[in-house]
Amino acid sequence: MDITKEKLSGKTRTEHDLLGNKEVPVEYYFGVQTMRAIENFHISRVRLNMFPAFVNGLAIVKQAAAEANCELGLLKPEIKDAIVNACKEITSGKLHDQFVVDMVQGGAGTSTNMNANEVIANRALELLGHQKGEYKYCSPNNHVNMSQSTNDAYPTAVRIALLYRTRDLIDTLKKLVESFKKKSVEFADVIKMGRTQMQDAVPMTLGQEFGAYAATLSEEIDRLENNVKLFLEVNMGATAIGTGINSDPDYTPICIKHLQQITGMPIVAAGNMIEATNDTGAFIMYSAAVKRLGVKLSKISNDLRLLSSGPRTGFHEINLPPMQPGSSIMPGKVNPVIPEVVSQVAFKVVGNDMTVTMAVEAAQLELNAMEPIIVHCMFESVEMLINGMNTLRERCIDGITANKDRCRDLVYHSIGLVTALNPYIGYEVSTELAKEALEQNKGIYNLVLEKGIMSKEELDKILLPENMVKPRKFIKK
Amino acid sequence: MDITKEKLSGKTRTEHDLLGNKEVPVEYYFGVQTMRAIENFHISRVRLNMFPAFVNGLAIVKQAAAEANCELGLLKPEIKDAIVNACKEITSGKLHDQFVVDMVQGGAGTSTNMNANEVIANRALELLGHQKGEYKYCSPNNHVNMSQSTNDAYPTAVRIALLYRTRDLIDTLKKLVESFKKKSVEFADVIKMGRTQMQDAVPMTLGQEFGAYAATLSEEIDRLENNVKLFLEVNMGATAIGTGINSDPDYTPICIKHLQQITGMPIVAAGNMIEATNDTGAFIMYSAAVKRLGVKLSKISNDLRLLSSGPRTGFHEINLPPMQPGSSIMPGKVNPVIPEVVSQVAFKVVGNDMTVTMAVEAAQLELNAMEPIIVHCMFESVEMLINGMNTLRERCIDGITANKDRCRDLVYHSIGLVTALNPYIGYEVSTELAKEALEQNKGIYNLVLEKGIMSKEELDKILLPENMVKPRKFIKK
Amino acid sequence: MDITKEKLSGKTRTEHDLLGNKEVPVEYYFGVQTMRAIENFHISRVRLNMFPAFVNGLAIVKQAAAEANCELGLLKPEIKDAIVNACKEITSGKLHDQFVVDMVQGGAGTSTNMNANEVIANRALELLGHQKGEYKYCSPNNHVNMSQSTNDAYPTAVRIALLYRTRDLIDTLKKLVESFKKKSVEFADVIKMGRTQMQDAVPMTLGQEFGAYAATLSEEIDRLENNVKLFLEVNMGATAIGTGINSDPDYTPICIKHLQQITGMPIVAAGNMIEATNDTGAFIMYSAAVKRLGVKLSKISNDLRLLSSGPRTGFHEINLPPMQPGSSIMPGKVNPVIPEVVSQVAFKVVGNDMTVTMAVEAAQLELNAMEPIIVHCMFESVEMLINGMNTLRERCIDGITANKDRCRDLVYHSIGLVTALNPYIGYEVSTELAKEALEQNKGIYNLVLEKGIMSKEELDKILLPENMVKPRKFIKK
Amino acid sequence: MDITKEKLSGKTRTEHDLLGNKEVPVEYYFGVQTMRAIENFHISRVRLNMFPAFVNGLAIVKQAAAEANCELGLLKPEIKDAIVNACKEITSGKLHDQFVVDMVQGGAGTSTNMNANEVIANRALELLGHQKGEYKYCSPNNHVNMSQSTNDAYPTAVRIALLYRTRDLIDTLKKLVESFKKKSVEFADVIKMGRTQMQDAVPMTLGQEFGAYAATLSEEIDRLENNVKLFLEVNMGATAIGTGINSDPDYTPICIKHLQQITGMPIVAAGNMIEATNDTGAFIMYSAAVKRLGVKLSKISNDLRLLSSGPRTGFHEINLPPMQPGSSIMPGKVNPVIPEVVSQVAFKVVGNDMTVTMAVEAAQLELNAMEPIIVHCMFESVEMLINGMNTLRERCIDGITANKDRCRDLVYHSIGLVTALNPYIGYEVSTELAKEALEQNKGIYNLVLEKGIMSKEELDKILLPENMVKPRKFIKK
Repeated sequence: MDITKEKLSGKTRTEHDLLGNKEVPVEYYFGVQTMRAIENFHISRVRLNMFPAFVNGLAIVKQAAAEANCELGLLKPEIKDAIVNACKEITSGKLHDQFVVDMVQGGAGTSTNMNANEVIANRALELLGHQKGEYKYCSPNNHVNMSQSTNDAYPTAVRIALLYRTRDLIDTLKKLVESFKKKSVEFADVIKMGRTQMQDAVPMTLGQEFGAYAATLSEEIDRLENNVKLFLEVNMGATAIGTGINSDPDYTPICIKHLQQITGMPIVAAGNMIEATNDTGAFIMYSAAVKRLGVKLSKISNDLRLLSSGPRTGFHEINLPPMQPGSSIMPGKVNPVIPEVVSQVAFKVVGNDMTVTMAVEAAQLELNAMEPIIVHCMFESVEMLINGMNTLRERCIDGITANKDRCRDLVYHSIGLVTALNPYIGYEVSTELAKEALEQNKGIYNLVLEKGIMSKEELDKILLPENMVKPRKFIKK
Repeated sequence: MDITKEKLSGKTRTEHDLLGNKEVPVEYYFGVQTMRAIENFHISRVRLNMFPAFVNGLAIVKQAAAEANCELGLLKPEIKDAIVNACKEITSGKLHDQFVVDMVQGGAGTSTNMNANEVIANRALELLGHQKGEYKYCSPNNHVNMSQSTNDAYPTAVRIALLYRTRDLIDTLKKLVESFKKKSVEFADVIKMGRTQMQDAVPMTLGQEFGAYAATLSEEIDRLENNVKLFLEVNMGATAIGTGINSDPDYTPICIKHLQQITGMPIVAAGNMIEATNDTGAFIMYSAAVKRLGVKLSKISNDLRLLSSGPRTGFHEINLPPMQPGSSIMPGKVNPVIPEVVSQVAFKVVGNDMTVTMAVEAAQLELNAMEPIIVHCMFESVEMLINGMNTLRERCIDGITANKDRCRDLVYHSIGLVTALNPYIGYEVSTELAKEALEQNKGIYNLVLEKGIMSKEELDKILLPENMVKPRKFIKK
Repeated sequence: MDITKEKLSGKTRTEHDLLGNKEVPVEYYFGVQTMRAIENFHISRVRLNMFPAFVNGLAIVKQAAAEANCELGLLKPEIKDAIVNACKEITSGKLHDQFVVDMVQGGAGTSTNMNANEVIANRALELLGHQKGEYKYCSPNNHVNMSQSTNDAYPTAVRIALLYRTRDLIDTLKKLVESFKKKSVEFADVIKMGRTQMQDAVPMTLGQEFGAYAATLSEEIDRLENNVKLFLEVNMGATAIGTGINSDPDYTPICIKHLQQITGMPIVAAGNMIEATNDTGAFIMYSAAVKRLGVKLSKISNDLRLLSSGPRTGFHEINLPPMQPGSSIMPGKVNPVIPEVVSQVAFKVVGNDMTVTMAVEAAQLELNAMEPIIVHCMFESVEMLINGMNTLRERCIDGITANKDRCRDLVYHSIGLVTALNPYIGYEVSTELAKEALEQNKGIYNLVLEKGIMSKEELDKILLPENMVKPRKFIKK
Repeated sequence: MDITKEKLSGKTRTEHDLLGNKEVPVEYYFGVQTMRAIENFHISRVRLNMFPAFVNGLAIVKQAAAEANCELGLLKPEIKDAIVNACKEITSGKLHDQFVVDMVQGGAGTSTNMNANEVIANRALELLGHQKGEYKYCSPNNHVNMSQSTNDAYPTAVRIALLYRTRDLIDTLKKLVESFKKKSVEFADVIKMGRTQMQDAVPMTLGQEFGAYAATLSEEIDRLENNVKLFLEVNMGATAIGTGINSDPDYTPICIKHLQQITGMPIVAAGNMIEATNDTGAFIMYSAAVKRLGVKLSKISNDLRLLSSGPRTGFHEINLPPMQPGSSIMPGKVNPVIPEVVSQVAFKVVGNDMTVTMAVEAAQLELNAMEPIIVHCMFESVEMLINGMNTLRERCIDGITANKDRCRDLVYHSIGLVTALNPYIGYEVSTELAKEALEQNKGIYNLVLEKGIMSKEELDKILLPENMVKPRKFIKK
C-alpha cells in the first residue's frame, strides 16, 4: 500500500521546523520533515518499506536509545515506555506503510532517521493518550532522537537490518546447497567427460560436478558470515562526528547493551568513533561477499546452460525442467530461462558493487553523505539474490535429470580417455593414439583393442569409472 | 495499481500451452504464458508497467506488425483493425496495469513479448465481440505475434521506447542547461578565484563558472541524440535468428514503413539481420552517453558542495537554497542535500553501465539472452536521471545566490593574483613576491604597493576583472 | 632502453627550480623537474616512452605553440626554428628514451609537460650551439612552454596521440574484418544449426555466422571514428583555467592552424575554454567505444570456443588452428588459447573503462587532476586491443576450418528443423512432431516421412538450405 | 634485462613438441613451449619477471612437487636434487631473466607453467652435468611437472606468491599507519572544526582526525590478513580437473607438507579438489580487500587535498610538503601531487577489481581459463599500492604541518560552536543564535556575550577544547 496515495480526510495538523510551517494530513504518523523529504526526493520510487528489515532496524535502534536514555535518567520512564512500545509495534510488522521516504536521498540518511523519529513519536503520543503532533509530550528530535544523530542512528539501523537479512540470505543459500548435494548423490554413478577450456578433458561423475557446485556455494556461507560480522561494530554515541559531543560518556555502553538484548547479537561499539562515523568500508567487504555469491551463481548457471545445451546439437548431458514455452516461432523449444535470470541477477549485483565502491570512495572528512545509495544497493542485491536462489532451487535444480547413457557414450567415444592410459603406455604412445583417433574419427577404446596395445580385460579395468575419477596407486617402474 | 493483487471474482478461463492447462482469472487480459512468467520471475519486484514508455513501445511494434501482415494479405483486415485499436488504447494509456511481468526475466524477453501478445489479443477479441480467451478468432501467437519472434519484437520495442524516453531526458536536460545559463548571466560580474587541484589559481567570474556548467551539459544533448540514434536501426523480420525464416521477404520493409508512420521517426532495418539479432552493442554506447551525463552531473554537484562549503570554515562563495533542516543535533545546519542525491544517482547509473557491459558481453551465438537486465538498467538510469535533474534544477540551481563580496575579497587577498602581474614584472620577481606573501601572510596587492613595484593606478588597471578573466594583448618587448 | 639506468659519465650540470638546486647528469636532455618527477612518481613502472604516439603528440603540440608564438612576434625565429627542429627529431623517432616519467603521476600532467619542455629545450640549445642547461638562450618554461600551461598542452598532446593511435587501431580492426569476410565466403555453403539461448534453433550457414562477425566488427570502425572525433576539439590557449590569462587573443586560432598543418587533421578550438579545461568527458565516450570493441571481440571469442568445443563431446563445428600443446597431462589436447587471451584483453579494457569513469568523475572545479590515469588506461587499452586483434587474426581466424559434414548432420538430425515445416503443417502439428522426436530420440526428417505427413520430394524442397536460411514467399491460405 | 633482446651467439638446439620442431638459442634456459608462448602472446608487454614473487612462487611449487615425487619413489633422488637446487637458485634471485612469457596469456597459465618447467629442467640438466635440451635425463614435462597439471601448479604458485607479496603490502601499510599515528600525537592539541557534508559541524582536534586515518588504515591489516588466508588452500594433486587422475593418493598430503616446510606457511589442501580447480572466488575477496585499502587511501588523499586547499581561498588547515613546482604559469603555486597520484592508484585498483570480477565469472565447467588476467591485475594492484603508500608516507604524510592558529580561529568564528551550547541554552535558542550569527556575519562566541546569555567565564569553560571533543556528563534537569 502506498500511504501517500490513500484517500485522506482532508484534515491536517500544522507542524514546524527550521524552514517554517507545513500542513500534515492527520492520518499520517510521519510529520513535517518526512513531508519535506517526500517532496525533495522523488528519485528511485523505492520507498523504505520495500525493505521491512530496514524499517525494523530503525525501530530497534530507537528502542535501544530510549532504553539507554531512560537508564541514564535523561528520559522519563513513561515516555520511554511509549517509545519502546511504538518500536515493538513496528518490529511486529505494524506501521510499515508510514516509512515512505525514497531510499535514494541526500542528507546522509537524515530523512530516513526523521521518518522513523516522527512515526515513533506520533505513535508514542497516541499510546500516551495524546494527539499526533503534540510534540511537547514526546518529540521526534528531543525524545525519540535523544543522544543520537543521523550519523550514528542511521548506519546502526542499516547494519542491524543487514545482519538480520543476511540470515535469510544464508538460509536460502543453505537450501540451495542441499539441493545440489541431493543431486550430487543422485548422479553419483553418472560417468561423464570433464571439460577444461571447452575441450574434452578427463572423466568424472556428474555427481562430482554437482558436488563441486554444492561445495563452492557452501563456502559462501562462511564468506557471508565472516564479512557480515563487520556490521556488528556500530557507532551509537558518536553523535555528529564521532567525538560524542552532547552525549553522556556512559551512553554508548548502555545503548550497546540494549542493542545486544533486543537482537541477541554480539554487537559492540567501534574502537574509534570518529573513524567509524565517516568510514563505510564494511560495505566494500560485505558487497564483495554478496558479489562473490552472485558471480558463483552465474558461473553455475552458465554451466547448466552448457550441460543442457541441445537437445541435438549441444552437450545434452542434463535436462532442466521446462518452465515455459521457449519460443512462439520454434515449436517444442524449451529454454534455460531460470539459469538465465540468475545470471542477470548476478550482473545487477556486480553493478551494485561498483556503485557501492564509488559511494564509499566519496566520503569526505567526517562523514560519508553517500551512504543512502550504498544502503539501497545492498538491500537490492540481497533481495534479488534471495529471490534468484529460491527460483533457481525450486524451478530448476530440484527438477534436473541426467541423460546417463549419453554421458557414458561421450566418455567412451572421447579421446580424453587416453589420459587414463598414460601411466600404462606412456605419454608418447598416448599422443600418437590421440592423433590417430582424431584423424580417423575413431574412439580410443576401439583403437587400443584394434591395435592390440592392451587386452580388453586390462583396458576395461583401467577404464572402470571408479578408477578414472580419483587418484590411484600405480606400480612403480 | 497492482492488478495481480486486486480483488477478483474467482471466475477463471482455461488456457493451454506447451506445458499444459492453466486457469486464468477472467478479469485478466493476459493469459497462460504471462501467468507462468509471474510465477517464474519473482525477482526484482519492478514490473513492466513501471516504465510506461516500454509498454507503449510494445504496442507500437505489435501495431506495425499487424499493419504489415494485413498489407501482405496474411492477416484479415477486421482482425488487424482490432489489434491496431487495442494497441492504440495502450499507447493512449489504457491497460498498462495488465503489463505485470517482472522486468528481470529469463527467456530473452519472451515473457514480455507474450504479456503484450496476450493483452492485445484479448482486448482485440473484446473489440471483435468475443470473449477473452477465444483465441481461434485472434490468437496471441498466430495473429498478434505473426511474422515475429521475441528476438525481433522485444528489442525493437525496447529501442522505440528508449527513443521516446530519451526525448524526455533531453527535454529535462535542456531545462537544466537553461537554469545554469540564467545563473551564468546573473553572476556575470561576480569576480572570484578559480581553483585547480584545490589550490588557488587565477581569477574568473562566477558567471564563467556557471556558464561552463551550462556548456558542459549542453554537450550532453548532442551525445544523447547522437547515440540514441543507434536505436533507429531495428531487426523486425529477423524472426528467430536473423535469417528471416518463416517471414515474407517483403515483411521487413513494410513493417519498417509502418513503424516510421506510427512514430514519425526515421527507423530503418538493420543491414545484417543476424548480427542485429545477437548484438546489443548499441546499449554500450547509449549507456555510456547516459553515464557521461551522470558523471558530469556528479562533478557539478561536487563543485556546488565545495563552493557552498562553510558557512564559516569553507569556501562559502555561493549559497544553495535550504531544502530541509540539516541536523537534529547541530542547530542551524543546512546541508547540500540535493547535490548529494544527484551524485548518488550518478553512482547508480555507473553501476548500471557495468551491469549493461557484462550483459552485453554475455551474448552467445545467435542471441543475447541477457537483454532484459540491460533493458531494466537502461530504463532505471534514464528515470533516475530525469528525476535527479528535475530535482537539481527546481530545488537547487534556480535558488542559488552568490556571496559577491566574499568572492571578491578572496581574489584580492589571494596570492594567485600574482599570475596577472607575470607579464609585467617577470616570472622570477613574481615567484619571490608569491613566496613573501605566503610567508608574511600578506596580500599580493598590498605587497606590490608597499614595495613600490608598481603604482596603484597601474596595478588597479591590470587587476581590473575584465582584464584578468580573458586573453589580452601585451606590448611586445 | 631505460635511459635512467644507462652508464653515465658522472658529470652533472646544476639546475634550479622553486624548490632549489639539483644536479642533473650531463647526458640527460631532461632537467630538474623531470628529475623530481622520477623521484616522486615510482608508481606503475610504465614510462611515457612506452607509448611513442604520446611522445610524438607532445612534440607536435610544442612545435605548433612555437610556430604560433613566433608568428605573434613573441618568440624569435631562430629559437623557434631550434624548437621546431627538436620537435621534428622527436616525431621522427629520436630522443624517445628521454621521456622517462611514470605515466601515473600527480600534478595533472605537469611532469609530463615539463619532461617534454626540458628535452626540447636542451635539444634546441644544442641545435643553437649551446650547452644543455643554458636556459637563458632557450628555456623549458619561458620558450618551449610559452603561452601554454600544462592544463592545455598536456590534454591536447593526449588527444592528438589518441587520434593517431586510433588510426592504427582501426587499421588493425579493418584487417580483422577482412579475415572474417573471407571466412564468410569460404563457409558460404556450410549449412549448420543456429542456436539461441544455447538451444537448437533454426538452420543458417556458417558463412552467415562469420559474416555477422564481420558485420558487427565493421560497425566498430564507425563507432571509433565517430567518438575519436571528440578529441579534435582542443583547448590550446586556455592556459591555467580556460580564461586564457597571459595569452594573446590571437594565439588560439594561430596555434590551431599550425596543429592542423602539422597533423593534417581538422583540429578546432573548444567553444568554451573553461569547460574544455576541466572536462574530460570525451574520454568516457572514447573509452566506451574502445570497450564496445573489446566486448564484441570477447563475445566472438566465446563463440569460437563454443563452436570448436570438443573434439568429441562438444559442438565441434569448426577447428581452430593449434597454437601450442594444450596440456602436459592430457596427450593430444589442444586449447583455444587465442580466443582466451582476447577475452582477457576485453576484461582488462572493461576494467580500464571503470577506472576512466571514476577519474572523470573526480574532476574538481577548474581542472581534473586525475587525467594521467585516464591517459594511461586509454593507451593501455588501445595497445592491448591492437595486439589482441593482430593475434586473433594471424593466429586464429585465418586458420579456421569447418567440419562441414558434421555441421550438416547436426541440422538434419535436429528438432529445430521443424520450424521450417511450420508454415506447411501448422504450429500444433509441428509441436507434436517435435515432442515425439525428442521422446523417441528420432530426427524430424525421418519422422515426417515415416508418418507420411509429406512426400520426400516435398520435404527435401522445403529443407533445401537456400530455402531455410532466408525469408521466402509462402502461398497465402 | 630483456633476455629475448640480448645478443646471442646464433647457435641453437632443436626442441620438439606436439606441433613440431623448433630452434632454441643455446643461451636460453627456456625451450620450445616458451618460445611458442613468446610468439603467441605479445599482448601486454609485461613479462612474468616483472613480478619476482610470482617467479619465486613457481619455483617453490616445483621444488615441493619434486620432493613429494621423490618421497613417493616416483623421482630419482639425484634428479630431485638437481630440480630442487635449480628452484633454490631461482628463489635466491637467479634466472629471473628467463621468465619471459607475457603475463596476459591464453591457456589458463600453461605457458607460465611450461616456462618454469623448461627453465628448471635445463638448469637441473646443467647441475647434473648435461647439456640444455637433453631432456631424457630431466624433462620439463616428465620430471619437473611430474604429478602436476598447469591447473594445480599455476594457481598454487600464484597463491604462494600473493601470500608473500601481501606481507610486503602489509609491512608498507603498517609504516604508513605509524606515520599517521605520529601526526595524530603531534596534532593532539590542534583544535579545529569537524565538517560533515562539507558544512561546518562541531569541533574536534586535528590529532583526532589523523588518528582516525591511522585507525581506518590499521583495520586494513586485518582485512588483508583475513582474506589472503583464503590462498592458503591449494589444489596440488588435483591434476587436470580435480579428480586427481594419474596422481598418487598420497601425493597431495606429501606435497602440501613440503610446501609448508619451504614456506613456513600453514598451507592446506582444498576440501573439494574439483571445486578448487575451477573456482577462483578467493580472488574476489582478496581483490575486494585490496580495493578497500585503495578506496580508503583515496578518501584520505581527498581529505588531505581539502584540508590543504588554499593557501588563501581554501581551508588551509594543514600544509603538505612541496614536492615540485606546481605550475609553469602560476608563480609560487604548489599542488598536492602526492595525494593526487594515490587517488589515481586507487582508481586503477578499482578497475582491476572489475576485471577480476568479470574473469572470475567467466569460468566454465572444470576450469577458469581466464586466470592469467586475474593474476596480472592482482600483482599490478599490489605493486601500485606498495609504491603508492611508500610515496604517500615519505613524500607527504611525514612532512605535513598544521596551521594551528588558523584552525583555532575557524572554530571560534564558526557557527557550529553553538552545538556545544545546546545542552545549556536549548535547541530553540541555539537555532535562533545560529540564524542571527549567519545573517549578521558574527561569531557565536561574541554573540552570546553580547546578548548576555552567558558569562564569559561560563562560556569559556564550555568551549574548552577538552570539553567539546568528547562525551561529557551533563547535569540532569
